[in-house]
Amino acid sequence: MTVVHEEKLRVNWVDTDASGRIHYTAALRYFEIAEHGLMRRLFAQLGAPGAPGATGVAAASFGAGFGLPRVHVEADYKLALRYPDEFTCSARVAKVGTSSVTYGYEIRNPAGELCIAGKIVAVATDALGQKAALPPHVREALEKAL
Amino acid sequence: MTVVHEEKLRVNWVDTDASGRIHYTAALRYFEIAEHGLMRRLFAQLGAPGAPGATGVAAASFGAGFGLPRVHVEADYKLALRYPDEFTCSARVAKVGTSSVTYGYEIRNPAGELCIAGKIVAVATDALGQKAALPPHVREALEKAL
Amino acid sequence: MTVVHEEKLRVNWVDTDASGRIHYTAALRYFEIAEHGLMRRLFAQLGAPGAPGATGVAAASFGAGFGLPRVHVEADYKLALRYPDEFTCSARVAKVGTSSVTYGYEIRNPAGELCIAGKIVAVATDALGQKAALPPHVREALEKAL
Amino acid sequence: MTVVHEEKLRVNWVDTDASGRIHYTAALRYFEIAEHGLMRRLFAQLGAPGAPGATGVAAASFGAGFGLPRVHVEADYKLALRYPDEFTCSARVAKVGTSSVTYGYEIRNPAGELCIAGKIVAVATDALGQKAALPPHVREALEKAL
Repeated sequence: MTVVHEEKLRVNWVDTDASGRIHYTAALRYFEIAEHGLMRRLFAQLGAPGAPGATGVAAASFGAGFGLPRVHVEADYKLALRYPDEFTCSARVAKVGTSSVTYGYEIRNPAGELCIAGKIVAVATDALGQKAALPPHVREALEKAL
Repeated sequence: MTVVHEEKLRVNWVDTDASGRIHYTAALRYFEIAEHGLMRRLFAQLGAPGAPGATGVAAASFGAGFGLPRVHVEADYKLALRYPDEFTCSARVAKVGTSSVTYGYEIRNPAGELCIAGKIVAVATDALGQKAALPPHVREALEKAL
Repeated sequence: MTVVHEEKLRVNWVDTDASGRIHYTAALRYFEIAEHGLMRRLFAQLGAPGAPGATGVAAASFGAGFGLPRVHVEADYKLALRYPDEFTCSARVAKVGTSSVTYGYEIRNPAGELCIAGKIVAVATDALGQKAALPPHVREALEKAL
Repeated sequence: MTVVHEEKLRVNWVDTDASGRIHYTAALRYFEIAEHGLMRRLFAQLGAPGAPGATGVAAASFGAGFGLPRVHVEADYKLALRYPDEFTCSARVAKVGTSSVTYGYEIRNPAGELCIAGKIVAVATDALGQKAALPPHVREALEKAL
């Protein structure tokens, strides 16, 4: 059953730049907050070993040495956000591969309009930093959330 | 009556550095979130002209051209924060001068221990960026919160 | 004649996160430094009205009210960067449309290996924030750099 | 002989906020760049064990488990910096204690005017994160730079 994790956030002053809008990198920080919320929820919920507490840092949750560095990031900016706008940022698992996971993100204003959409691909790595298969319990948890 | 505004926050992954703790500048972003929450509360509450909505950006709240740039910032770090720690950050008005306001901040862990304390002095400026007296309604609102 | 603008940079401590590598948003800040260097060079070189000094902020260079907000950002991460690695970040104009410009970026380590590649599309906006054609002198300068 | 390490820097677009000036936390990132440059210079110059390469991360330079977390930070803002201003940021060792080091920082515009001044105190910690004496070769190198 698709799990869409939503965080209610606000544009902070530090997120803006001299254009008066958010700096475009702020959107990626919002994505990360929603993604880590999603991961905490998926792994706490499923009782995966090492998940709760270690949480969010997928790396930490999944065992020593395990990493999930990002290999591809993209974002589309449709409507401007300004300080102190409120918005929701959602994250969901969009695709699960043998060693990769793709997240999808949406930032919407209180009227429900899509302001920013994004997609990030992360690839599992082992203790040596080499590409590795997702551990079975991690893959299973991610697939259940699709 | 002293108004202490508290925000419940969490260390985000992006707030950390390679030491495994938060980068020390993250604390100043937390201070700002609490301070802006405080200002929104004070000015919404008092019905000051131009306050709600414009809010947080003190500048915006207080009339065109009015600014409140920071002239002094300090912080003391007592206990480390790590991802994904939860904490509260409080802000209060500590002192009000003719043209300046001093805020005090405290970051505490869930056990109530003080992790980081801070103080920031901001000075009112006019449309030309010159030091100016705080507008009377702003000064009054700040003094009521002392 | 293709203009490829390169900046020699170093990973700063604040760019890292608790994984020990750079946080992935750091790459986008590096892209921006190279892109603004490119823009300063193109517009200073061509003597475009309002260019030098105003510079980098494309918005500022091209006339009051003119903006170039980003509408699409993407990056591919191939090799990790760590503090205090040195690297070069290049930016070039990859495509010029009626109202848009696409930049390409490459981050390479001292061995010349591609660490991160990126692409950003920006769209011209007028004083009302509506999509607008690139001013002729801006378009011409960008096309000459292709 | 006092060592004052200077970095020539420029305000990046991402350093600004919606006031049109730099966000005040940007100054602390500039301080860090100058401080790490200073540390690389002191430890490379003195041939301290583990210094060059390990560099800037004082922690890394001084041996496994050694840390230098900041315990006090302060900054005074005198003149505004805006994008794309050029400036110099200097760092020097201002004081050396048994377990602490105090750095002093100055940000000056091309006219030589002081824009921002700062001071940071860092305290040595051992592998358990407890306050510890500075290793003798570190203390000596810092004292020579006073």
